[in-house]
Amino acid sequence: MKRYEDKAWKDSMRVRVDFNNMMSEFVGENGIKLEEIESMRSEISRAVKGMEQKRSNMRWRELPFNQTEIVTELKATAQHIRNNFEYFVVLGIGGSALGPIAVHQALTHARYNELPDEKRNGPKFYVEDNVDPEKISALFDVIDIKKTMFNIITKSGNTSETVSQMLFVFDILKKTVGDDWTKHVIATTDASKGSLRLIADKYSIKTFIVPDGVGGRFSELCPVGLLAASVCGIDIDELLAGAAYMDEICTETADIMQNPAYISAVLEVIAMRKGKNISVFMPYCDALKYMADWYAQLWAESLGKRYDNEGNEVFVGQTPVKALGVTDQHSQIQLYTEGPNDKVVTFLEVENYRKTVEIPSLEMFDELHDVNFLSGHTFNELIGHECFSTEYALVQSGRMSKNIVFNEVNAFTVGQFLCLLELQTAFAGELLNINAFDQPGVEEGKKATYALLERPGYDEKRKELEMMPKKKDCYIA
Amino acid sequence: MKRYEDKAWKDSMRVRVDFNNMMSEFVGENGIKLEEIESMRSEISRAVKGMEQKRSNMRWRELPFNQTEIVTELKATAQHIRNNFEYFVVLGIGGSALGPIAVHQALTHARYNELPDEKRNGPKFYVEDNVDPEKISALFDVIDIKKTMFNIITKSGNTSETVSQMLFVFDILKKTVGDDWTKHVIATTDASKGSLRLIADKYSIKTFIVPDGVGGRFSELCPVGLLAASVCGIDIDELLAGAAYMDEICTETADIMQNPAYISAVLEVIAMRKGKNISVFMPYCDALKYMADWYAQLWAESLGKRYDNEGNEVFVGQTPVKALGVTDQHSQIQLYTEGPNDKVVTFLEVENYRKTVEIPSLEMFDELHDVNFLSGHTFNELIGHECFSTEYALVQSGRMSKNIVFNEVNAFTVGQFLCLLELQTAFAGELLNINAFDQPGVEEGKKATYALLERPGYDEKRKELEMMPKKKDCYIA
Repeated sequence: MKRYEDKAWKDSMRVRVDFNNMMSEFVGENGIKLEEIESMRSEISRAVKGMEQKRSNMRWRELPFNQTEIVTELKATAQHIRNNFEYFVVLGIGGSALGPIAVHQALTHARYNELPDEKRNGPKFYVEDNVDPEKISALFDVIDIKKTMFNIITKSGNTSETVSQMLFVFDILKKTVGDDWTKHVIATTDASKGSLRLIADKYSIKTFIVPDGVGGRFSELCPVGLLAASVCGIDIDELLAGAAYMDEICTETADIMQNPAYISAVLEVIAMRKGKNISVFMPYCDALKYMADWYAQLWAESLGKRYDNEGNEVFVGQTPVKALGVTDQHSQIQLYTEGPNDKVVTFLEVENYRKTVEIPSLEMFDELHDVNFLSGHTFNELIGHECFSTEYALVQSGRMSKNIVFNEVNAFTVGQFLCLLELQTAFAGELLNINAFDQPGVEEGKKATYALLERPGYDEKRKELEMMPKKKDCYIA
Repeated sequence: MKRYEDKAWKDSMRVRVDFNNMMSEFVGENGIKLEEIESMRSEISRAVKGMEQKRSNMRWRELPFNQTEIVTELKATAQHIRNNFEYFVVLGIGGSALGPIAVHQALTHARYNELPDEKRNGPKFYVEDNVDPEKISALFDVIDIKKTMFNIITKSGNTSETVSQMLFVFDILKKTVGDDWTKHVIATTDASKGSLRLIADKYSIKTFIVPDGVGGRFSELCPVGLLAASVCGIDIDELLAGAAYMDEICTETADIMQNPAYISAVLEVIAMRKGKNISVFMPYCDALKYMADWYAQLWAESLGKRYDNEGNEVFVGQTPVKALGVTDQHSQIQLYTEGPNDKVVTFLEVENYRKTVEIPSLEMFDELHDVNFLSGHTFNELIGHECFSTEYALVQSGRMSKNIVFNEVNAFTVGQFLCLLELQTAFAGELLNINAFDQPGVEEGKKATYALLERPGYDEKRKELEMMPKKKDCYIA
């Protein structure tokens, strides 16, 4: 029996949201009163109904349940890669990169790529999610292309950044390994549309499908994220079991106060209406550091919208800020406690780290009272107390915060966490009466880039750009 | 002659601030009018005087000019380390970590630690700026302690996180290399105070001094940052020459519109008064990615203040947000263009990358119009056009932005940049009439941590913590 088939173990590993410090009982008059939640009752009911009615469109919600065959294929492919390649490189951007990076950081060794081969549980792992020429060229200084598998991830099959990288990689592969180049590529893309699909089919490149109804920022639990995870030795069955467990909790819990995704969304929306336009995400755990990046995309792109579902101009959204405990106590906490009361902090708290490290006692420090009180404690205690102390300092200054509590960081809790935040985001979208699943605001910049690159069909836009006020030497210091 | 002794080269490398898109002429009614700058004339004069009068206290301003002897010693020490050690580990947090990380990322190979030894210009480099037990233990899986030099950086000599790490490292060193342990340690700390100073003097550990009047977040250009930079092969003379060049520009330029540090501060303060409580920092360059982290500390801790200099409650400050172009176009730009108009974006723009990489043309894509328009361009063009297009999209939606423009990323331009931002921050502090150099808001959390660790003398705080409302199982989902 797998441990995630044991109900007692699963319940012991349940990821919980502690929102005491959002409430006025704990944080004072700046906090939220129970009556404020109560007064949203009809909005909440409408949102709950919305989630039920739209479930069939939110196909990312089915990923923990409908991938048995795909997972078998993913694991076989991952095993093939582990046996035959020393480097695994993801080419992707946004939702095709942030999930793979975050899960890798959470569930593999903190210095994975630098481990000696015999201690590393898979090939070296890289995600190339930018088009900076210095960064791109640096990769090829450290990998051996003959021993590299590239996973090109783009749902549309046409993402400019990713297909540019693809052209570069195909060119090098063809020059280096000749006709075998197709064996160094796996395409993760739409089932039927886009340039990557066409090329993959024409050259018999191995592919995985990004299913319909699964947008980039909701795609970590489909092959977009699962292949990389499996290649690096992560138990993707357990990851999906965690997500399934959280989905069930959030679907079956009728009481809003007991539904971690829904109550979190309600509290954030109330906070937004109270002028908290900033959402700080602060893991007290290096392994969860890049979950803040993943969250930043999910929350920003989903909720940052000009129009509501009725077409009213609302300019809504909350800006995510990535922080890391305890590191950023020495960088951001001064502002969080003394600056404007304009933010909500979400702590990611870990009860049990996977290592225990003692702070030793050394005779030479016996008389040094600024040091010796630390000896005999563990780093685990230190980071835990610092998390609590930061929470406390925010409470003392009347700032709202909440904690997402992990018993331990493992595939089961990470799967829960991903599902929790996706559901929280979707529910917040329902409460705000917006479409949480589109991103119309990125089109303007894309068109301008096409025009500047002289892509056929963008002459009008190019003229528009030429008409802009000439800024050369106008205000420059 | 060094290139930074050539005036023509220096002027060609001048870092400039393009603030057209802060102004209403370019960005429309949400922008700043010249009259608004004009109406701050007396505030600006007061701030300019403040900078002059306080110059002798701002001793970080002298660092580009008064370190000739120290730099000679730093370079000799760095050479010793390069000759004798394979790993160089900084133990430090906040200002003792963010500068060294940012400068390393800017001025060494993008995948420095993974380069083969013969291609790497110095020992492998690590900065340990957290107390996460998993992260700490991971370091010792990848370094060989017998070949490691540790640089312990804490100005006070008593920073809990850093001295905990120090205890751990001293213990391992003593067990591994015995009496030679002191040869594996360099202490960067106060000249006379603190536990680290006491121990260093007692055991004849090599030290460098963090000068008086140089606070953590203003310390990159003293031995805090310079040793690590020199160890990794960075030209610290050129770095300091760049800072000196910018300091002179910002000191000698009487016209506020031509003073890059001062005009930037004025514009940000006006924006803050218009409700822009968020400052996004978005380098279009992987090498400058961690400059956003360095800036985030500088801006947040310096300006996030409860009281002004007269003791009035002001709760002032602007929250820094770290972004990366083009990557975060696929994560944050939807929010920036369509969400609340509550932010100013600062782009770091690079005119000449240190590599040029072409996007190749491949016959197989000839008919694919979503791909083939990219062929024949370079990644340099692509990232440059995307930067401009994002700027353009923000202008179209009436959002303010400005660009800090680098001709190229090199030690001279990075030195300028560091100085520019430090001066901008100090000047903004003067405009806001606050103390930009303290951080009283972090004390509360520190005391709570001491109390929880049962440090003698913190019984009162411990009682206070025990008196807090019991939150167990109160609001948890």
